[in-house]
Amino acid sequence: MQVSDITSVQIPGESRWRAGILLLTSFRFIFRIMPSQHTLQAPYPTILSMRKKSITTEYHELKLKLKDLRQIRFTFQGREADRIFAAMSSLMESADRVFAYKFKLGVSSHLEGTRVFDVAKEYIRMGLPNSEWKLTNVNSDYLLCPTYPRLLCVPDEMKTSELMAVSSFRAGGRIPVLVWKNPRGKTCLFRSSQPLTGLTWNRCAEDEKLISLLTRSSGSETLHILDVRPKKNAAANQLKGGGYEHQTNYVNCNVTWGGCANIHSLYDSWNKLYRLVNEQLQSTNWLTHLDNSGWLSHVQTSLEAVNSLMDSTEQGISVLVHCSDGWDRTPTVLSLAQICLDPFYRTTKGLVALIEKDWIAFGHRFEERSGLQRGHQSLIQQGGAKSKSTATNFSPVFAVTWYFRLFLDCLYQIMTQFPLHFEYNEKLLLNMTEALYSGQYGTFLRNCDRERRDAKDNIAENTVSFWTILLSNPSLYKNSLYHRSNSHRLKTQHETEAPEIAAYGQGYRDLDHEKLRPNTSSRHIQFWTSQYIRSWPLPDKLTAVRTI
Amino acid sequence: MQVSDITSVQIPGESRWRAGILLLTSFRFIFRIMPSQHTLQAPYPTILSMRKKSITTEYHELKLKLKDLRQIRFTFQGREADRIFAAMSSLMESADRVFAYKFKLGVSSHLEGTRVFDVAKEYIRMGLPNSEWKLTNVNSDYLLCPTYPRLLCVPDEMKTSELMAVSSFRAGGRIPVLVWKNPRGKTCLFRSSQPLTGLTWNRCAEDEKLISLLTRSSGSETLHILDVRPKKNAAANQLKGGGYEHQTNYVNCNVTWGGCANIHSLYDSWNKLYRLVNEQLQSTNWLTHLDNSGWLSHVQTSLEAVNSLMDSTEQGISVLVHCSDGWDRTPTVLSLAQICLDPFYRTTKGLVALIEKDWIAFGHRFEERSGLQRGHQSLIQQGGAKSKSTATNFSPVFAVTWYFRLFLDCLYQIMTQFPLHFEYNEKLLLNMTEALYSGQYGTFLRNCDRERRDAKDNIAENTVSFWTILLSNPSLYKNSLYHRSNSHRLKTQHETEAPEIAAYGQGYRDLDHEKLRPNTSSRHIQFWTSQYIRSWPLPDKLTAVRTI
Repeated sequence: MQVSDITSVQIPGESRWRAGILLLTSFRFIFRIMPSQHTLQAPYPTILSMRKKSITTEYHELKLKLKDLRQIRFTFQGREADRIFAAMSSLMESADRVFAYKFKLGVSSHLEGTRVFDVAKEYIRMGLPNSEWKLTNVNSDYLLCPTYPRLLCVPDEMKTSELMAVSSFRAGGRIPVLVWKNPRGKTCLFRSSQPLTGLTWNRCAEDEKLISLLTRSSGSETLHILDVRPKKNAAANQLKGGGYEHQTNYVNCNVTWGGCANIHSLYDSWNKLYRLVNEQLQSTNWLTHLDNSGWLSHVQTSLEAVNSLMDSTEQGISVLVHCSDGWDRTPTVLSLAQICLDPFYRTTKGLVALIEKDWIAFGHRFEERSGLQRGHQSLIQQGGAKSKSTATNFSPVFAVTWYFRLFLDCLYQIMTQFPLHFEYNEKLLLNMTEALYSGQYGTFLRNCDRERRDAKDNIAENTVSFWTILLSNPSLYKNSLYHRSNSHRLKTQHETEAPEIAAYGQGYRDLDHEKLRPNTSSRHIQFWTSQYIRSWPLPDKLTAVRTI
Repeated sequence: MQVSDITSVQIPGESRWRAGILLLTSFRFIFRIMPSQHTLQAPYPTILSMRKKSITTEYHELKLKLKDLRQIRFTFQGREADRIFAAMSSLMESADRVFAYKFKLGVSSHLEGTRVFDVAKEYIRMGLPNSEWKLTNVNSDYLLCPTYPRLLCVPDEMKTSELMAVSSFRAGGRIPVLVWKNPRGKTCLFRSSQPLTGLTWNRCAEDEKLISLLTRSSGSETLHILDVRPKKNAAANQLKGGGYEHQTNYVNCNVTWGGCANIHSLYDSWNKLYRLVNEQLQSTNWLTHLDNSGWLSHVQTSLEAVNSLMDSTEQGISVLVHCSDGWDRTPTVLSLAQICLDPFYRTTKGLVALIEKDWIAFGHRFEERSGLQRGHQSLIQQGGAKSKSTATNFSPVFAVTWYFRLFLDCLYQIMTQFPLHFEYNEKLLLNMTEALYSGQYGTFLRNCDRERRDAKDNIAENTVSFWTILLSNPSLYKNSLYHRSNSHRLKTQHETEAPEIAAYGQGYRDLDHEKLRPNTSSRHIQFWTSQYIRSWPLPDKLTAVRTI
């Protein structure tokens, strides 16, 4: 462990510097503010960039930009800054998923969060497979789609060869599949990537057949295809061989646009928010600046897409959601919609099942986006020199899990609007955000199911799941306002046949079967202070409760 | 009862008009929207202005501007509009405090809220009188100050003749008096109006003596005089004979400025908010507009004044708070400070005691500000004609209880920041806002203690108190997160001598003795949606919870 003696730190929003001691462990840095005993700490993968510069000939500064929107500035006297910069750089560069394996060695719990949840159980809860829908192992060797899970749910009539043909017509082989069925009805939600129509409007008979089967098997006459991109994004993708479903080729389909911004736009908003929270703290017109950052518009647009989806399901019309690759905007909107439609996902176990299914199994690029992939960690700069990244392919645009965090923000809005309907609380969302970048848990490692099951890594065996930690602290994450009503008990279809499924769905059966309709007026979208303003004021000011 | 058959109403934020039936009772109007059975209703004193105009030769409109920030527009066909306009005008003009007497006749409850609370009990809870402080009946005939209560707490050494001399040197005779003493210490809070120094810096030996005794009796060497006005307001008042304490004349006093805006500025912000909530609902940049309304700045400034007061009390320095008259800005800041300092005021009974003491007893002009005083009700306009007020002295600036509502908004902020520390919930604040304008309860009738005890009215006997209603529904107003800790029990000084006081302070003794320090950063000030956006969307959209 590296230790730097008395140094000082600048807290955003405070004018004075505070003295303290900096400790560097193999996992994180810890700065202990003297004499208050308060600490600032962060695991290395939380650092988006580090910059060293000289203030005077005597004093040097290390400025850290963190993915949790904090800015931390340390000053050092003399050569100390060089020593710490070198040590930090080396620790940051080696901070990858390896830590999760080390962490596992210190945990003796037999509660294996990764084994508690199984996507197959989710299908069974929804009454699948049935006469219309089959569960298929067609992707067992990840040849149909390298980033999808092995088990997929598709219309019973679709042959394997037809699915393979669809695979070559969808970006990354991410074919349209079922992700949710109303456990008490026929309405479904599907996901995919964009069709590879290109500018010439290429067609694929098997793709058109699959889409038409999605419609028929879900018992409706039409299908709502919600392309969550802005139409201009879809058109731009067409130039690169992507595209969207042309209404003349896909009969009985209604294509609409979600207008959700791309990753560059989210990065831009996040950067404005970063400056606002760290550098313009004393400025007036906070709300105007916040408005201009555009972050809350992204939240609003995502929730509007959810409502547009629900407009269809309320009429018994199933919805296929996709964007370009189908791993960022698609799970954001889909998982929020499922939380609004299905009260099981408002229980703690249900939220875990949802994230395991729609984010982890279906291949959100967690490891790349959270900076745990070697070469994607962070930007390290020295003096006025040209930026020197830890790897040539580093770009901050892709190094933060924007969409998962947007999902959490939207979820926070819904929880705020419906405070009685969630078993879990805000604390769970905040701690999950930290876990994204800590590299401590196997949960958010690797980018897809295939990588995760790689024999060399064997994440399920060799790491601790975040869900293990979560489920062993139920009282910490419990919403005390949660209202369980027993008036509308639902028996899962398979309750009698499969007792283990009945136990799994216990939470669900005790719940009200209610849909939530988020209010998307900008008047009702709130800035999530406890998530975005973590650095200032210090905890002692934030929760100052003193004895008279 | 007057009934208008099918008419239609425009809900702000909705483009379509809704048909329904309008009923006019002697107390309020009720519009039942067909076929939803939803109703819009408001007691007449809630109406700030009503305007009638023709849309076509066939259709006429009544546009109501309500004090709860709602705008309601009715259309009528043919002559119906004239008939309803005449009926509404007449009902609005006769809607005064008389309704509270009628309401009393229908209530048989023996729970008399007005009798439960007595300012004298509050003094006893604080350990008063004692060797330094006396309770005096010097104002028993309201000659010292017509708008103060009869019982006042002043330094023991002050003679009646000296108090009378001070009275002539303070605006409206509102002399500096004690309103709160730390039940476990010596630190006090005082209130008054401005001294009448004028431009010539008139002095008053008795006033200077009183101020010096406030300092000495509260056991500190200096006194903090918090003039909550902006300094330029105080200077403007000097031209009219008012003024502030000159530091050379008041030794050991430290005068600071709270910067809280005057009533015209609050009215201006409220009007911008009104337009924003009703007329610019579809506009983008909501946060920018909200920022420009300035309403949240008023909230922030008030909370900053509270913190500035607490900076002094934390050092054992007592604080005298005043503005010009000492009945608007002064109780706003003082009552918030007491909530932060004294956990008793975070109980439901404590909040009632606080409002009874600092707002009702000490003469906030509730009746004038809530439109229940004849001639102050509302503005009634017809066509493009010149405004025709119900009385020549009507001004909307003074017709809404701005400061009490600002107090409620600030309280909401503190409750949001410290969700575990309040026995009461947001619902209580919302219902209290409605009760301000309903004319149903005696609680907010008349402008001061003297008027309230007038034998002709005898409000305590002849009306129902809002507190009666409040205390008979404890579960409705209870914050389920409220955390009672028994670890720091406090015995009131008088517990053994006065058992009835012990019972009164029961809630207090069970509480943690904690000070709350509100976070006044604009990042932590929230727009109070449920208070200010009451009209849109309709309740069925707001809380849409449906069964799948």
